[in-house]
Amino acid sequence: MINEKILDLNKNGSAIRAMFEEGKIMIAKYGAENVYDYSLGNPSVEPPKEIREAYIDVLNEEKPSLVHGYMSNAGYEDVREAVAQHLNKNFGTAFSAKNIVMTVGAAGGLNVAFKTLLNPGDEVVTFAPFFGEYRNYVNNFDAKLVISQTDADTFMPNMETLASVITPKTKAMIINNPNNPTGVVYPESVIKEIAEVLVSKEKEYGTSIYLIADEPYRELAYDGVDVPYLTKYYHNTIVGYSYSKSLSLPGERIGYLVLPDCLDDAEEILPGVAVANRVLGFVNAPSITQRVIGRCLDASVDVEIYNRNRELLYTKLTEMGYTCIKPQGAFYLFLKSPIADDKEFVKNAKKYNLLMVAGSGFGGPGYVRIAYCVDYDMIVRSLSAFEKLAVEYGLKK
Amino acid sequence: MINEKILDLNKNGSAIRAMFEEGKIMIAKYGAENVYDYSLGNPSVEPPKEIREAYIDVLNEEKPSLVHGYMSNAGYEDVREAVAQHLNKNFGTAFSAKNIVMTVGAAGGLNVAFKTLLNPGDEVVTFAPFFGEYRNYVNNFDAKLVISQTDADTFMPNMETLASVITPKTKAMIINNPNNPTGVVYPESVIKEIAEVLVSKEKEYGTSIYLIADEPYRELAYDGVDVPYLTKYYHNTIVGYSYSKSLSLPGERIGYLVLPDCLDDAEEILPGVAVANRVLGFVNAPSITQRVIGRCLDASVDVEIYNRNRELLYTKLTEMGYTCIKPQGAFYLFLKSPIADDKEFVKNAKKYNLLMVAGSGFGGPGYVRIAYCVDYDMIVRSLSAFEKLAVEYGLKK
Repeated sequence: MINEKILDLNKNGSAIRAMFEEGKIMIAKYGAENVYDYSLGNPSVEPPKEIREAYIDVLNEEKPSLVHGYMSNAGYEDVREAVAQHLNKNFGTAFSAKNIVMTVGAAGGLNVAFKTLLNPGDEVVTFAPFFGEYRNYVNNFDAKLVISQTDADTFMPNMETLASVITPKTKAMIINNPNNPTGVVYPESVIKEIAEVLVSKEKEYGTSIYLIADEPYRELAYDGVDVPYLTKYYHNTIVGYSYSKSLSLPGERIGYLVLPDCLDDAEEILPGVAVANRVLGFVNAPSITQRVIGRCLDASVDVEIYNRNRELLYTKLTEMGYTCIKPQGAFYLFLKSPIADDKEFVKNAKKYNLLMVAGSGFGGPGYVRIAYCVDYDMIVRSLSAFEKLAVEYGLKK
Repeated sequence: MINEKILDLNKNGSAIRAMFEEGKIMIAKYGAENVYDYSLGNPSVEPPKEIREAYIDVLNEEKPSLVHGYMSNAGYEDVREAVAQHLNKNFGTAFSAKNIVMTVGAAGGLNVAFKTLLNPGDEVVTFAPFFGEYRNYVNNFDAKLVISQTDADTFMPNMETLASVITPKTKAMIINNPNNPTGVVYPESVIKEIAEVLVSKEKEYGTSIYLIADEPYRELAYDGVDVPYLTKYYHNTIVGYSYSKSLSLPGERIGYLVLPDCLDDAEEILPGVAVANRVLGFVNAPSITQRVIGRCLDASVDVEIYNRNRELLYTKLTEMGYTCIKPQGAFYLFLKSPIADDKEFVKNAKKYNLLMVAGSGFGGPGYVRIAYCVDYDMIVRSLSAFEKLAVEYGLKK
């Protein structure tokens, strides 16, 4: 028999990925114009033009054996130093190359961090709703994902709830800010409260609790909202970053981990992360794209395009009678399902060629996730489908 | 406490990688001209010129959202189909896109295969000497690497030994052809014998034993030697391939797994591998390099350059009194250490700025690995250092 966890995942695969594959089939059947695929967080905004130029410059200017060759498992020293300096400039931190490990996206980075930190039976706390893959990443290392429920209306965490789920086995907490799937941004006041809880629990249990800040959506924040940089609030913070969304490069698998010197056991964790990157089979982040990133640290996609999508969708859906909070970050809108069974609602929406993902997969039953990283025109075309769905459920007053 | 296996690896890290890092320090101290670094399998031959052109063509001709976006976890359908047809043309196989999963190099591919196949306590057999990372990859999934010793002079396997180490717990066997670190190529006769042993053991135990063919060195074979394609000899074969050596792209992390329809449990393994690719955090092989590979299937590096290195080094070292078999493939020469303690020999060679890797790390104590994927001129310059070392050990008659 093959691996039991994989057998289980085959049966209960990713709802997001299943929908993505289904979308491709529907497009073949009904035509791309007539399918409204809100399933996958695949950025619709083109990468900034600097990216294409940087790839071509790297290919023209740098030595092929440097561009495509092995480097240290942590990544190119010069790229890591440039990333560190970029963070220092933006957030007033004091990192250097040794604090940065380039990773195969944030997904690779989180697995590397968990491989380094977790022993079997350890617990990892996260707020629900959460990115469903966290469960798999934690499960890869035989640890347990522990949920801290948030407020049902605002998705903001409750500190008593958080404190109640932390045990002596809690090795890490993972926080996703801005949040996928809710679009919520935790403000500084909340971050300070979380840090207080963690510090007090570390003291109570005599343990180290690592706060893993998963920040692929850091640059996608709207209305001038501030996204606090967590290493400044809590000593045991590891940041996981990805350029998948900020530079629209999800297929390239490029990101990094930030590992501050002040981490408990830093002298084991810093080299351990490079080793984990190697033995898990990543070896190093893709080399040419590391070189490109080193040249494009100030580049970013035009967030206004997502903002325009957000405004249109939020305005129209609430007008139709749907319930949702207005997302402040990322490119997701977490819509309340008109019926308790969100999977049934998702299934029913497919009648109108509307593809959304059930909230259950995110630990948010009763909701559906709408990824609005799509063409504006698709949103416009999809509105009549949302309208019909609203009418069917009697939402329209 | 952080992960115990990582703590252990921190202590007993990769000898190859340690030497690579040490080489960088020595170069800074003595100058690149005066350090003879034979430690890492980092190809010295430039990628074929088609590669650079293909990157630029992809950037100029294809849509950025296609080039850099998400695709199915298994990879781009058109690239997988092209890889399948390329294999069919070269080896008379009958694969299609569904049998190919693009991976983050062979290291990523092997981890994905093991994640899919192995349950804790399973056993994976390999011939010694072997690529040391196999132990870590198998360990990642709490399985056990079981060694089948080969002939001390030829490094050719013995079928009785192989049969004796296979148990009802043997879930897989991994075979590296051409072999790292010995440079041996197992001929068709040996492959047929291995297949016979596996078939008979599957029958005896009523189990499935998957043969994983790790083939990053397939294209690096000399003197017209044939490297058999293993799916043709054994029904439960999975091939892991990488373009790291054949196209000199080790930093790009690009390769694939071949998963034939005739595998036992193929209906679980084929989707399971794509799921494993996702949940381990690879998500997909780097997208732009997948697009490039799809355009460069017939490209290859100039193997004659490695052959010239091989001839020079083998001729000169044996003239000096060193003992080694002439490698038929890959770009490694596995030299017999003049003293039993290969680590001591490696340490002593550093006096002459000669960097080699102790065979112990490859399950081949008493030997050292010389990676001759280096500049020809470096080999020429290094000969007097090898000579002094030979004199020191009294090898020269």
